[in-house]
Amino acid sequence: MFMRKLIFLIAPLVPGWLMAQRSDTGLSRYIHPIIGTQRMGHTYPGATYPFGMVQLSPDTDTIPYEQNGRYNPDVYKYCAGYQYDDKTIVGFSHTHFSGTGHSDLGDFLIMPTTGDLQLNPGVAGQPRSGYRSAFSHSTEVSEADYYKVRLDDYNILAELTATERVGFHQYTFPAASNAHIILDLMHGIYNYEEKNIWTYVRVVNDTLVTGYRQTNGWARTRTVYFAMTFSRPFTHYGSRNYSKKQVYRGFWGKFDATRDFPDLAGRQLRMHFDFATREGEKIKVKFALSSVSTDGALLNLRTELPGWDFAQVREKGRAAWDAELNRLSIDAGESEKVNFYTSLYHAFINPTIYMDVDSMYRGLDQLDHKADGFVNYTTFSLWDTHRALHPLFNILQPRRNADMIRSMLAHYQQSAEHMLPIWSHYANENWCMSGYHSVSVIADAIIKGNAPFDANKALDACIATSNRRSFEGLGEYIDRGYIPAGTNGTSVSTTLEYAYDDWCIAQAAKQLGRMDVYDRYMKRSTSYRNVFDPSIGYMRPRLADGSFRKEFDVLSTNGQGFIEGNAWNYSLYVPHDPAALVEMMGGKQRFVAHLDSLFTMELPDKFFAETEDITRDGIIGNYVHGNEPSHHVAYLYDWTDQPWKTQERVRMILDKQYKPTPDGLGGNDDCGQMSAWYIFTSLGFYPVAPGSDQYWLGSPAVDRATLRLENGRTFTIEARGQGQKNVYVRQVLLNGKPLDRRYITHREIMDGGSLVFLMSAKHK
Amino acid sequence: MFMRKLIFLIAPLVPGWLMAQRSDTGLSRYIHPIIGTQRMGHTYPGATYPFGMVQLSPDTDTIPYEQNGRYNPDVYKYCAGYQYDDKTIVGFSHTHFSGTGHSDLGDFLIMPTTGDLQLNPGVAGQPRSGYRSAFSHSTEVSEADYYKVRLDDYNILAELTATERVGFHQYTFPAASNAHIILDLMHGIYNYEEKNIWTYVRVVNDTLVTGYRQTNGWARTRTVYFAMTFSRPFTHYGSRNYSKKQVYRGFWGKFDATRDFPDLAGRQLRMHFDFATREGEKIKVKFALSSVSTDGALLNLRTELPGWDFAQVREKGRAAWDAELNRLSIDAGESEKVNFYTSLYHAFINPTIYMDVDSMYRGLDQLDHKADGFVNYTTFSLWDTHRALHPLFNILQPRRNADMIRSMLAHYQQSAEHMLPIWSHYANENWCMSGYHSVSVIADAIIKGNAPFDANKALDACIATSNRRSFEGLGEYIDRGYIPAGTNGTSVSTTLEYAYDDWCIAQAAKQLGRMDVYDRYMKRSTSYRNVFDPSIGYMRPRLADGSFRKEFDVLSTNGQGFIEGNAWNYSLYVPHDPAALVEMMGGKQRFVAHLDSLFTMELPDKFFAETEDITRDGIIGNYVHGNEPSHHVAYLYDWTDQPWKTQERVRMILDKQYKPTPDGLGGNDDCGQMSAWYIFTSLGFYPVAPGSDQYWLGSPAVDRATLRLENGRTFTIEARGQGQKNVYVRQVLLNGKPLDRRYITHREIMDGGSLVFLMSAKHK
Repeated sequence: MFMRKLIFLIAPLVPGWLMAQRSDTGLSRYIHPIIGTQRMGHTYPGATYPFGMVQLSPDTDTIPYEQNGRYNPDVYKYCAGYQYDDKTIVGFSHTHFSGTGHSDLGDFLIMPTTGDLQLNPGVAGQPRSGYRSAFSHSTEVSEADYYKVRLDDYNILAELTATERVGFHQYTFPAASNAHIILDLMHGIYNYEEKNIWTYVRVVNDTLVTGYRQTNGWARTRTVYFAMTFSRPFTHYGSRNYSKKQVYRGFWGKFDATRDFPDLAGRQLRMHFDFATREGEKIKVKFALSSVSTDGALLNLRTELPGWDFAQVREKGRAAWDAELNRLSIDAGESEKVNFYTSLYHAFINPTIYMDVDSMYRGLDQLDHKADGFVNYTTFSLWDTHRALHPLFNILQPRRNADMIRSMLAHYQQSAEHMLPIWSHYANENWCMSGYHSVSVIADAIIKGNAPFDANKALDACIATSNRRSFEGLGEYIDRGYIPAGTNGTSVSTTLEYAYDDWCIAQAAKQLGRMDVYDRYMKRSTSYRNVFDPSIGYMRPRLADGSFRKEFDVLSTNGQGFIEGNAWNYSLYVPHDPAALVEMMGGKQRFVAHLDSLFTMELPDKFFAETEDITRDGIIGNYVHGNEPSHHVAYLYDWTDQPWKTQERVRMILDKQYKPTPDGLGGNDDCGQMSAWYIFTSLGFYPVAPGSDQYWLGSPAVDRATLRLENGRTFTIEARGQGQKNVYVRQVLLNGKPLDRRYITHREIMDGGSLVFLMSAKHK
Repeated sequence: MFMRKLIFLIAPLVPGWLMAQRSDTGLSRYIHPIIGTQRMGHTYPGATYPFGMVQLSPDTDTIPYEQNGRYNPDVYKYCAGYQYDDKTIVGFSHTHFSGTGHSDLGDFLIMPTTGDLQLNPGVAGQPRSGYRSAFSHSTEVSEADYYKVRLDDYNILAELTATERVGFHQYTFPAASNAHIILDLMHGIYNYEEKNIWTYVRVVNDTLVTGYRQTNGWARTRTVYFAMTFSRPFTHYGSRNYSKKQVYRGFWGKFDATRDFPDLAGRQLRMHFDFATREGEKIKVKFALSSVSTDGALLNLRTELPGWDFAQVREKGRAAWDAELNRLSIDAGESEKVNFYTSLYHAFINPTIYMDVDSMYRGLDQLDHKADGFVNYTTFSLWDTHRALHPLFNILQPRRNADMIRSMLAHYQQSAEHMLPIWSHYANENWCMSGYHSVSVIADAIIKGNAPFDANKALDACIATSNRRSFEGLGEYIDRGYIPAGTNGTSVSTTLEYAYDDWCIAQAAKQLGRMDVYDRYMKRSTSYRNVFDPSIGYMRPRLADGSFRKEFDVLSTNGQGFIEGNAWNYSLYVPHDPAALVEMMGGKQRFVAHLDSLFTMELPDKFFAETEDITRDGIIGNYVHGNEPSHHVAYLYDWTDQPWKTQERVRMILDKQYKPTPDGLGGNDDCGQMSAWYIFTSLGFYPVAPGSDQYWLGSPAVDRATLRLENGRTFTIEARGQGQKNVYVRQVLLNGKPLDRRYITHREIMDGGSLVFLMSAKHK
């Protein structure tokens, strides 16, 4: 930790992103988007507005999804388009996931160049082999809604900012008779040749270009429309179509389509817009997106960003981030503040707004819909985010969270399968990961009184989703109480997740007085017992005949009945009834021993390869913080006689897994889930079972925190004496009165008040 | 001719389409859609409503556009999907061009089968190699908006009819435990593997399926949406994805996508819907199209075709055709009536309606538009149809013709090139053939007083179109007065067509009092003189330096300065000023000699191969009736002292080029242009220069004709004594008074009245 803090002091050696002169005093000054861009964090350093539809960010390479017809594992590094160790920037594209472990997007790459036109990106290792440029972190500034870098090959200063739906580029050129701005419509993240279904471009006039890009990626059928406008007219423009096969070009010899031809379509297009520039001339580009049409993009452009004042737009973005962060301010050391507010930043990026300024969006049914009375969102990484991110929203962003649920219900209405989202982006269901955790998000909101939607209809959607028998083993799960091993490589973890989800449905039903549903789903929620082998004390794959599978290694993960967690970890996955789990596993003492072993054992080398999404640093014993099934685990000591071990462990995890550096995240941020864990844990409590109103206590890592709630009330947290050594909680006072339980409730927070932790270097 | 008439008498040997028992008395009983389906006519025998958006017709093969990476000339036979000589039917698809010489469409092939499921169409020469079926003309009935055939392999009786936007299938099955209805989304006309951009299908419930197909064909970027509903529920359904490359299938192991999975997307999909049928059970399918959305298709379906009464819908279609044909009825021999009314039928198929029942359609700008106060049309084969089809519409269908022009103006508004349509279909400009003949259609309507649109704006569109300098040699044409040979393979014919088009613009400008435009364009309209070589008396390719190209063969066509016509023919292409042409070519005597030689010369064998779109029967000397640049030529004798030769030649052409048989058309019907020539010529006059109000007289081939005009007036034509031998016109009486000129005017027709030809066996 010393070395890491030291770099703040040695200015001349440190990257530009740390050295930006920020005169402002807003909290957004603590946002360092560069955190997590090295190795496995999969965050991006570019510009975005809170929950913005545009994520305008540099892409440092274009690794194809496949090489020689096989999956190319290197593509994984580029989930967010940027890797800190890279030496070149390919360009700046407008859509990026934050922290995902699979990817898509990277739409509409813009790159300014000078000199002879190059329309190929070129190769990282060969300077000047294409339009990409070398860059250095010393010229790089990465802030909330602002990114700057010098493109060294061209001596062009690139600056980016964004409104919710419009990316704003500002390029400062040298004097050049042949300056270009390239629009690469082939570029994409997790790209492969057939991913581009179709692209269309129309040059409306010498400053306005519109079009769309349609892809078959992780989102199976996705179309993004754009409107792009330049601050000054281009002198000429042109294009090249890189499709190998072009039977119908559509010009019939009437036009030269490669130059100044305004009506282009094809699978693989790249365009260039040409200028002559004076020394220091700024060419600005506004680039608006829409899921509906080019007119939708134009509407977004003209409504959100009518002018050309880059500094003003940047300032507006910064102010928006200040306002969002101001919902939760802390007193802590500078380094912790960077971690904390950057976590809050990462938590407030996803889900992303998915509608035009007139509330129109393209739905899963391929029809255009109006979000009537709510903001429609997409990018639902629910297997991750139901755990802590949506619970965090129920406290800090209740209005948005309710709208996210309305968006999930709209998804349900449009779903051909009549299911709530599993992992959904851009009105596509990509079906990634297990369970049907939408029900957790919905139940959590209902339980916590944040359900300004039709809660009974929402519950109906939960019930319908949980009864789609053809969905991943669900029919067998309903009939048998577990998914038989053999038919499904994740039979145990999926059974466990269904059981938790069913408990969520039961909780919502109870709240709504539908006791028949409650009873049915409470019964289903005990299904975790059906995959527990009492003879060994672990969850274990079970065959259709009822016997447990013989071949079984408690440390093995993938295809062995589990995903992103082995039996050692997943045996702890009964978040909705830890007390029963403790009993089932042999009582408190044996349970503590199991937990201890998880954090302290030495994992044999061969299992590291199986651990997904994680750097080696990201593993503590056999506890893998970057894999979400563990996120509640450190809190389970609260159900034993040794809650101080929760306090100790969570501080260790905070310390080891989150650092204010590019390589500071031990695993994928997963659309804010990792960050939400950081925020809750830093505040001293965590939602072990969303769908309950309880937050279980840990060890606060901030001196003081103020939650300014949307209901106008304030909830403060104080951790008296907390520090590197003072991680143990001696006493907790809620509104001045000693708390005689190990959790607080949602209502206690939302009513406003104070929570004081008296910290100590020794556990009780 | 004797043999052809004989087949009417020998019933047991003749095809079913001639033997249908028609109890009705409407004129549509003379419609034989089968005419032109053999060899080069490129018509289709299936069901369509007048100007209908749906053309539901059998496809008899699926020849790919390319074989081994090269153009497959056999594909040309299947421009309309059906060839009379074929022995198998692949299925019934919903969109077809009528008579084109290039093609596209063939969307959404439906095929009913029984027995083991086959999802491949199979091969024509191998019985039962796929889902296709043998059929025989003896079971085939092809009528106005009705088609019937027995699918012999399955003993299924297939019947088709259609409303404007909905195809209606009725399949009578045998008893079968495994009956299927196949929906082939890979099928298409002028198909090649990459033509399918994307297809999407959603099984909404067990009788309703929606989706779309997106293609890159002759229409570069075309999406057709559908809604398909069954008269009874299917028991199961399934699909196969034939794409070689499928990185993202979008199921992530959660579902079996091949069976009962409702949410499909991919490049190459085929689906099947399964039934068990009783003997004689009818399964009906309604299939609606839209260019806007699946909701648009549903709206069309529910509005136009709410019920399931097949006979009623068929009857409605027949009545619609009766009504359209009733605009122009004739007295003539039965065989001539078949020719005439089938020509009228073919003339009233295109342009096709292109909007949903709520007037919405997808435009060239990829945006959805509402046709405000007009019916929007597409399928503009203007190089062909400006000659006689649109002039025919100005008489018989003025309301529709005005709406077609409104549609062309909407195209202009949406065009990235700011041009009126050249050859446009499904909101795509395919740029086929030369000139900018929209201006002819617009000028013709303005001149003839059928311009209930903003005529000045229309003229502005004409002017803009004619000044798009980057369009096929247009800049050089404007600067030099001709397109230099070398830069363009059709430099002469295109120059000539521009000159005519410019004259049209001048005429419209004069009518609108814009004399500056008139003067400018009258000057441009004389450009034909710039490619006339007086030393040889022919139009001839001219180089940039002003000299005529040395290598030159007056009989050669393609790439030698001309298209679809050699110098011998194209030297006659000054439709807007034949008198000047006659002068230029050396006076009346020499001009007649040139015309005579055209019809009587023996064309050397090598030039037959160069003659496009034409059977050998379709050539009379060096006159190629199936190629439109000749269409006015037989009338040019009217500008000489021997107009009787016009009378003689046009009768010969009527006789040789139009027969009431499957092989009855000598060349492509070209969206009704060949048919419109037949109708005008049969009536005794022809619009030599659309844009003028004159119809030049020929030799009527009907005894009597009655034109029931939209303005409520009636115009009758009588050809007293006309017959095989009496082809010469002794005298013409207009409203009882002798006519002392060789043309009548549009106003004379529209005012109502009578035109009497006194016929003779001898010319004057």
